[in-house]
Amino acid sequence: MKNKVREFVNHNKYFVQFIYGLIILNIIALILESYQSLNANYKWFFNAFEIFSVVIFSIEYIVRIWVSDKTKENKRERINYAFSTLGIIDLIAIIPFYLPFIFPIDLRVVRILRLFRLLRIFKLSRYSKSLKTIRYILKETKSELSITIFVIFVLMVLSSTLMFYIEHDDQPEQFANIGDAFWWAIATLTTVGYGDVYPVTPLGKLLSGVIALIGIGFVALPTGIISSAFIEKIQNEKKEQKKAEGQCNCPHCGKAID
Amino acid sequence: MKNKVREFVNHNKYFVQFIYGLIILNIIALILESYQSLNANYKWFFNAFEIFSVVIFSIEYIVRIWVSDKTKENKRERINYAFSTLGIIDLIAIIPFYLPFIFPIDLRVVRILRLFRLLRIFKLSRYSKSLKTIRYILKETKSELSITIFVIFVLMVLSSTLMFYIEHDDQPEQFANIGDAFWWAIATLTTVGYGDVYPVTPLGKLLSGVIALIGIGFVALPTGIISSAFIEKIQNEKKEQKKAEGQCNCPHCGKAID
Amino acid sequence: MKNKVREFVNHNKYFVQFIYGLIILNIIALILESYQSLNANYKWFFNAFEIFSVVIFSIEYIVRIWVSDKTKENKRERINYAFSTLGIIDLIAIIPFYLPFIFPIDLRVVRILRLFRLLRIFKLSRYSKSLKTIRYILKETKSELSITIFVIFVLMVLSSTLMFYIEHDDQPEQFANIGDAFWWAIATLTTVGYGDVYPVTPLGKLLSGVIALIGIGFVALPTGIISSAFIEKIQNEKKEQKKAEGQCNCPHCGKAID
Amino acid sequence: MKNKVREFVNHNKYFVQFIYGLIILNIIALILESYQSLNANYKWFFNAFEIFSVVIFSIEYIVRIWVSDKTKENKRERINYAFSTLGIIDLIAIIPFYLPFIFPIDLRVVRILRLFRLLRIFKLSRYSKSLKTIRYILKETKSELSITIFVIFVLMVLSSTLMFYIEHDDQPEQFANIGDAFWWAIATLTTVGYGDVYPVTPLGKLLSGVIALIGIGFVALPTGIISSAFIEKIQNEKKEQKKAEGQCNCPHCGKAID
Repeated sequence: MKNKVREFVNHNKYFVQFIYGLIILNIIALILESYQSLNANYKWFFNAFEIFSVVIFSIEYIVRIWVSDKTKENKRERINYAFSTLGIIDLIAIIPFYLPFIFPIDLRVVRILRLFRLLRIFKLSRYSKSLKTIRYILKETKSELSITIFVIFVLMVLSSTLMFYIEHDDQPEQFANIGDAFWWAIATLTTVGYGDVYPVTPLGKLLSGVIALIGIGFVALPTGIISSAFIEKIQNEKKEQKKAEGQCNCPHCGKAID
Repeated sequence: MKNKVREFVNHNKYFVQFIYGLIILNIIALILESYQSLNANYKWFFNAFEIFSVVIFSIEYIVRIWVSDKTKENKRERINYAFSTLGIIDLIAIIPFYLPFIFPIDLRVVRILRLFRLLRIFKLSRYSKSLKTIRYILKETKSELSITIFVIFVLMVLSSTLMFYIEHDDQPEQFANIGDAFWWAIATLTTVGYGDVYPVTPLGKLLSGVIALIGIGFVALPTGIISSAFIEKIQNEKKEQKKAEGQCNCPHCGKAID
Repeated sequence: MKNKVREFVNHNKYFVQFIYGLIILNIIALILESYQSLNANYKWFFNAFEIFSVVIFSIEYIVRIWVSDKTKENKRERINYAFSTLGIIDLIAIIPFYLPFIFPIDLRVVRILRLFRLLRIFKLSRYSKSLKTIRYILKETKSELSITIFVIFVLMVLSSTLMFYIEHDDQPEQFANIGDAFWWAIATLTTVGYGDVYPVTPLGKLLSGVIALIGIGFVALPTGIISSAFIEKIQNEKKEQKKAEGQCNCPHCGKAID
Repeated sequence: MKNKVREFVNHNKYFVQFIYGLIILNIIALILESYQSLNANYKWFFNAFEIFSVVIFSIEYIVRIWVSDKTKENKRERINYAFSTLGIIDLIAIIPFYLPFIFPIDLRVVRILRLFRLLRIFKLSRYSKSLKTIRYILKETKSELSITIFVIFVLMVLSSTLMFYIEHDDQPEQFANIGDAFWWAIATLTTVGYGDVYPVTPLGKLLSGVIALIGIGFVALPTGIISSAFIEKIQNEKKEQKKAEGQCNCPHCGKAID
């Protein structure tokens, strides 16, 4: 019977789509709640829907724990599931609802804890297989991408310190400290450019121009890294396919001819 | 005679260029009409040109339906054409003109329906062959690109919900609800940065910086996907060409040597 | 003797660098002239430098025409040079100076004509060989890049027309006509986002978000096209090199093994 | 003994991490000092920390000089180290502290010299090996990237000169001279778009749109260059690996089969 439940929870089309839908409706509810007029008039509905969702997700969580041992009553597998990324997300997504019943906690803390409901969105990834390619690429390029981010960070520290000393006297409010200058550096290097902080001195403009141009380069760098990883992956897949199709060996040394 | 007409409608250089030109003039007219001074003084001209265009496009549509059966009076092919993308565009581009004669409809609805004339622009693609490569690439990478868009969407939901809770108290007008915060998320992740909404709290600025940096990564991801598809296409074309040129087979197993 | 002059004009290191320097000084002078205080105080110097430059460039132009016939007095070659891109640039860069002596022309026209002096910057490319790779890549990808630009243009027309009808009633000044909406479309699709025009209605913001996301895609498309062209070029160069190094032929059909 | 010290300075895990930490704390101190309230209250702490850091870095510098001669008392190697990039950075990072004791210099000069402490950040790269790939790629593509920057620069000069003549009469303050127009060109070509300067005339908007579109292209160009360099590097590494694994030679000419 446990096998049937496990099968149902993991692969039944309608159940999976029901959970999908419930998660999305939860996110929509969280967004709608932020509209004051809606929140005032339909508070009872949002509360009811929250209770309904938490009950469903709680049952789902308990069932998943229960069915997680594939080989007879293996406690190890249950613990493995409970501490897996998805298991923790499942738990964190429901626990804030129960907390106020256990501890007498501040209402403002509750408000923040309610945000954990957002984590339910990650439950969507359990059912999705197409995310794998992108996750594989990001994993492959992790070390180069993190170096790029480190270099960008160093660049930001350098340029925002310089910018602070250049602009502070002319714009003491906008560039009150290096933290403010760092905000300018982010907006410039990522080419967002909100326009709330920008240099006004010639030297500051020069530095800003150089940083913006370097910013273009730092769009190019991760792009190049990711592109090459994608291409490598495609070529590897082709080779695997070729091997599977059978291969012709070199008559002289017995090795495979590409 | 039908064959001649079909030939004329599809391949006659001057007719094709005439339709091209008429479509472009229609778009220009639609743009010029939006200038109040022009619209006031030359309304009669815009109306006359609209009637002229609709007559031409209507005749073209009827003729295309008529000649769409290549094998004698095959009704199937006519229906196929009528329900093809181009056939539907052809119809929608002319029908808003006739509607007011059939139903007594509101003038404001007519104004919106007139926008369908814009669809004529897609008729240009009928004659263009160079769009094919780009359409092929987009089709090849559809699944990865749509996952990227989904991930971007999830990221936007997460960051705009967080941003709403962070900035709402300091900027109750700019971040009145999560919808407003979503508008900020779009402007930041796409690095547009209009500058009408931006965080002012240190925590909000931190989140904004992280989102903007991730935004750079999400320019990199589709670029990598599309680049690799282009490169794969070029390599496939080369292989096809090689095959066409004749190939040398392995003397031991008879398989083609790359 | 003509050969010696041709050699001097085209390959003498010091002469080439002198012309380089003079062009750059001309551009700097044009920029400095735009500063009112400098222009008022040093007008005589700018005039003198302009006369000096024009004299040098005129002599250079005449000499280049004179030495352009490699095979004895071949008029064809001279005409070829005079109508080559570089020849025309050489001429246009000096002619505005002489025009006022020939025709009595308006001073405002002279001011505009003086801008042609900027064309001298393109003379720099005569001496540069490293631009070739980039020019080759742009030429190779010309058809795909121009299609991309056409698609971007169509997208802009569509979105700016829609945006005009969406935003006109709420912002009659910012979105007075489709031309204004087009200015918004450019700022959004290219992710520049000056912040002088942006939608305020929910529908407008939705459209703006979609357009900005598509904008990211249209950064990806030309990048993919250009990347693949670069990679193809490198691979072709490797093949050429291999061929030059000598190659092993297939013992069965005589064809080259890759 | 000198060998032991050299080993300790270059490879001892705890010493290396201590220097790492001290550099990062120095940068953080520099940033915190810029906050007026912190600087006023904790000036004594910042000064003490500065003295402590300089003492450590000075000792480290002297020790590094001392141990830089691997073969017995080779003065050459010491001088080589002293004039290597890292050696100079080590020196410049500590020297501003000692200068006021030697020369009686202006306090404002000291303030600028203190910025050299930022250079300590580059000392981090001594211990990092993962930066090598990115540095290798940037070195490989240096000539093409610098040409791209040159082309961007020419484009900026051209467009800002044009923009100045187009917009000067309508916005004499924003576009007071070509330098101001250059600031607009940077913000547009890099798609930062702060929004402090933008064209208002139709002709200016047209030029701005063209420049912004070209800007997209100039994001694509370095990306293509860097992507292809990454891919080439990966393919070369694969070949090397193949060679190392042993290779099958062509039985007819003795050459390696790929």
